[in-house]
Amino acid sequence: MKVVIVGGVAGGATAAARIRRLNEQAEIVVFERSGYISYANCGLPYYIGDVITDPEALTLQTPESFFSRFRVNMKVRHEVTAIHPEEKTVSVKNLETGEEFKERYDKLLLSPGAKPTQPRLPGVGLDKLFTLRTVEDTFRIKDYINANHPKSAVLAGGGFIGLELAENLRELGMDVTIVQRPKQLMNPFDADMASFIHNEMRKHGVKLALGHTVEGFEERDSGVDVLLKDEQPLHADMVILAIGVSPETTLAKDAGLELGIKGSIVVNDRMETSISDIYAVGDAVQVKHFVTGQEALISLAGPANKQGRIAADNICGGDSYYTGSQGSSVIKIFGMTAATTGVNETNARKTGLDVDTVILSPMSHAGYYPGGKVMTMKVVFEKATYRLLGAQIVGYEGVDKRIDVLATAIRAGMKATELKDLDLAYAPPYSSAKDPVNMAGFMVENIANGVLKQWHLEDADRLPRDGSVTLLDTRTVEEFAHGHIDGFFNIPVDELRERLGELDKRKRVYVICQSGLRSYIACRILAGNGFDCYNFSGGFRFYDAVTNDRCLIESATACGMDRA
Amino acid sequence: MKVVIVGGVAGGATAAARIRRLNEQAEIVVFERSGYISYANCGLPYYIGDVITDPEALTLQTPESFFSRFRVNMKVRHEVTAIHPEEKTVSVKNLETGEEFKERYDKLLLSPGAKPTQPRLPGVGLDKLFTLRTVEDTFRIKDYINANHPKSAVLAGGGFIGLELAENLRELGMDVTIVQRPKQLMNPFDADMASFIHNEMRKHGVKLALGHTVEGFEERDSGVDVLLKDEQPLHADMVILAIGVSPETTLAKDAGLELGIKGSIVVNDRMETSISDIYAVGDAVQVKHFVTGQEALISLAGPANKQGRIAADNICGGDSYYTGSQGSSVIKIFGMTAATTGVNETNARKTGLDVDTVILSPMSHAGYYPGGKVMTMKVVFEKATYRLLGAQIVGYEGVDKRIDVLATAIRAGMKATELKDLDLAYAPPYSSAKDPVNMAGFMVENIANGVLKQWHLEDADRLPRDGSVTLLDTRTVEEFAHGHIDGFFNIPVDELRERLGELDKRKRVYVICQSGLRSYIACRILAGNGFDCYNFSGGFRFYDAVTNDRCLIESATACGMDRA
Repeated sequence: MKVVIVGGVAGGATAAARIRRLNEQAEIVVFERSGYISYANCGLPYYIGDVITDPEALTLQTPESFFSRFRVNMKVRHEVTAIHPEEKTVSVKNLETGEEFKERYDKLLLSPGAKPTQPRLPGVGLDKLFTLRTVEDTFRIKDYINANHPKSAVLAGGGFIGLELAENLRELGMDVTIVQRPKQLMNPFDADMASFIHNEMRKHGVKLALGHTVEGFEERDSGVDVLLKDEQPLHADMVILAIGVSPETTLAKDAGLELGIKGSIVVNDRMETSISDIYAVGDAVQVKHFVTGQEALISLAGPANKQGRIAADNICGGDSYYTGSQGSSVIKIFGMTAATTGVNETNARKTGLDVDTVILSPMSHAGYYPGGKVMTMKVVFEKATYRLLGAQIVGYEGVDKRIDVLATAIRAGMKATELKDLDLAYAPPYSSAKDPVNMAGFMVENIANGVLKQWHLEDADRLPRDGSVTLLDTRTVEEFAHGHIDGFFNIPVDELRERLGELDKRKRVYVICQSGLRSYIACRILAGNGFDCYNFSGGFRFYDAVTNDRCLIESATACGMDRA
Repeated sequence: MKVVIVGGVAGGATAAARIRRLNEQAEIVVFERSGYISYANCGLPYYIGDVITDPEALTLQTPESFFSRFRVNMKVRHEVTAIHPEEKTVSVKNLETGEEFKERYDKLLLSPGAKPTQPRLPGVGLDKLFTLRTVEDTFRIKDYINANHPKSAVLAGGGFIGLELAENLRELGMDVTIVQRPKQLMNPFDADMASFIHNEMRKHGVKLALGHTVEGFEERDSGVDVLLKDEQPLHADMVILAIGVSPETTLAKDAGLELGIKGSIVVNDRMETSISDIYAVGDAVQVKHFVTGQEALISLAGPANKQGRIAADNICGGDSYYTGSQGSSVIKIFGMTAATTGVNETNARKTGLDVDTVILSPMSHAGYYPGGKVMTMKVVFEKATYRLLGAQIVGYEGVDKRIDVLATAIRAGMKATELKDLDLAYAPPYSSAKDPVNMAGFMVENIANGVLKQWHLEDADRLPRDGSVTLLDTRTVEEFAHGHIDGFFNIPVDELRERLGELDKRKRVYVICQSGLRSYIACRILAGNGFDCYNFSGGFRFYDAVTNDRCLIESATACGMDRA
């Protein structure tokens, strides 16, 4: 059996090694267009920021080391230019010599990845404009920085790469601005949760120019002007485009493979394409979203690696299945960690799911043990069934742990109410006896039992201020004085029982406190005394963070424009 | 409704607050024998070690604060001395005044906890002997240390409390010895995994006197002699007994409640005892082990809190069920973290389960990103069904995360093979594209598919050295020279294909490398060339750690006796 693999990074390299382990006799050839194989894709921004200092750390495997261990022919700087399914060959161009040749295959695996989206804008070809995909791109950016000592950068695009680059360039002491059309960074997160990310970026001096449309680039004063629609241009010494990625599937398209969203390759759950003996994996393929069941593009290293292994199994005569991606991801944002799994509220609603959420602010570990930090957790579940659909967490410690627990619960098809039963490991340095994930489960169970009724951020402005409902803040007098929502009045929870006479039982009561706990207790006191009571999901802490984020205020025309 | 609760810590305090939230009208009285309620049980050792410096941090709730928020009568220093189910009363003694009275109840909840086991040995009453259960015990130990500046301590018992105390006393600069009869610390772990704990303790200067029987205590030279069977006594300035705990159920026994293991209270899954309107929760009750289905005693704060909530629901007319404990736990051991969930291999075999295991040494996060640390993970599964039964992990980072993911997978009834499908969040600072938990899943799947056959630690001595089998070490020449198992010979994996002629195809091959990865690849090369090959689970790294642990060598009479 002869296997040809297009692309020698995540999915391709994984598959090559696995095929060899399953079949000592197979002939395996990998064509990789760049000069490097199996490189640390996700580590590239950290090399630019000097967090990873050894360039060899990025490229642990070389074609030589890969050959000596796996007898795989890793042909770097070789581009596959065409697939000929009828004759089971590919056309290959040696980018070093220009030589072109055909290579026969019995099984072909496509792992071409996704390429950075290049906007069709004037000035995109300027030499102070960069994109980041390969090791070569990384060295190009690093060399430019080392040679020219740019003092400022504009990053176009606020996704994973944009944010990781922003952090790393800031750590080098550069002035960094992120510009993009969406008013929210990190679209896997709901806008409310993204506020915490915005705040952390600003806290570390990253300027956000969100809600702005880039119209082109012009060289000026040994730097670049980033031209904006209806705004003065941004100026910086260098610009990096990190707008997003698109599946790299020209090859697949020309070969007549069935294509899906954004030209991605359609595969079945065995990673087989529409043409027999051709498999595809990684960022170039369309996958089924595990939670929504819909077709999706999910460019993440974890799925790519898993798919590579599955394709390898099937190429070697096995019977392995990819069970879908749920988009679990995590990002370090300076000291903060932001993580998500499943669907967020916005996307769940878009797909027609009737959802509810709980928002909580638990400590990462026991409050009495030093070093605990508050995290903000949002859990999304289906209203009728309580099926767990997704979760987002931002915080400073223990965030990655809780998202992985929730990711596992989603994969297991758990209900959100079942989170309360999880038997998680507790000791004061690591958690609380009621872990944050358990707490979320308790809250959802309270909703299921009618013990907890909630009101949400979007209700805050809509609630009548005409006295027809009671708007109650149950924090201390000091907390209330320090800031509260207009129209709310204050009775501290511990005084509530004595002061019930101040409230009108015929009116619904909307309660808020700092984190949502004291207002929940207040609601129970009120409910026990015959009131119809609603608790604010997330607390004033959450309300304050979100509503102080200019980027999410619809009317703010100059949203997020932090200029120097 | 009048609810009386015996015990105002974990389960009792949780239940009291929950009952109030569900029923604003109920009368709730809690009798707590000690002077403190709702205290940070698990934080007590850290107060002794000055990690927690504010004594108020240990007792966040006071009877006053609890009353003002929950209108619960928290009667501290009150001991319930008898239950009279026929008249629905309890007898109570005010320990301050000596006054005795009866209190009526409609519902009674017992949360008496477990008390430190007091061995019946000569000298147990000495005033330099301490136990640790309550805040008072903590202050007693701390006051003794502050007043007398003891330079040395012997801790009898090597479980959670013993180890946490050892660490904290070491951090105070004391000379610390742990003595106990079992040859292994931390019995929730298999002996092989406990070796890593032993090594970490020794590395931080804690002396281990394992496998020794304490026969009594004698005052000598302003300190204490700990008398040992067949050994010279250990001498120290103070001794703390941390041998274990027993359910505190004299009260329950006298009331005629059905008792189980070690006199624990038998409850159903609604936390109801054998007498109507009497509930029980926490360390005093017998629970069903979630994995084995057997009755068990599991003294942990997480289950106690969950049970308190469930009892409260049912007391208030609800219908909540406790679904069993799986013993998830974690402990900080100096810089190390050790965690476990489900059953270990030893206990699984004891309960008659036919199990297999995988042992792996993954990095906590991407190797190319700074700060990653190797962890040792052991996953236990049922041989025939691949049902995930348990896991143990020791390491320095990300251990608590992986154990919670595995705990969740166990709770969901997952097969160990399904761990490969978990969609976990990856970024270089947090994990690898193939998370350690995924890696365990890959290994189990390889076993399921016949791609991986293993040999284990217990085979190491048994394998014939007479040439009838091939014993192969596939590490580099340098690694091999630095240490290897007697009888093994060396062919580095990358030379194996060229040197196959040195091996006899008719002989089984037993392969080892450092972590198990290169030997796995070697096995696949050999299998692909017609050999019958077995891979050592855990690698030389694991073999070396375990076999260098004197405490686990049966023949060593003076096992672990590190004397000053």
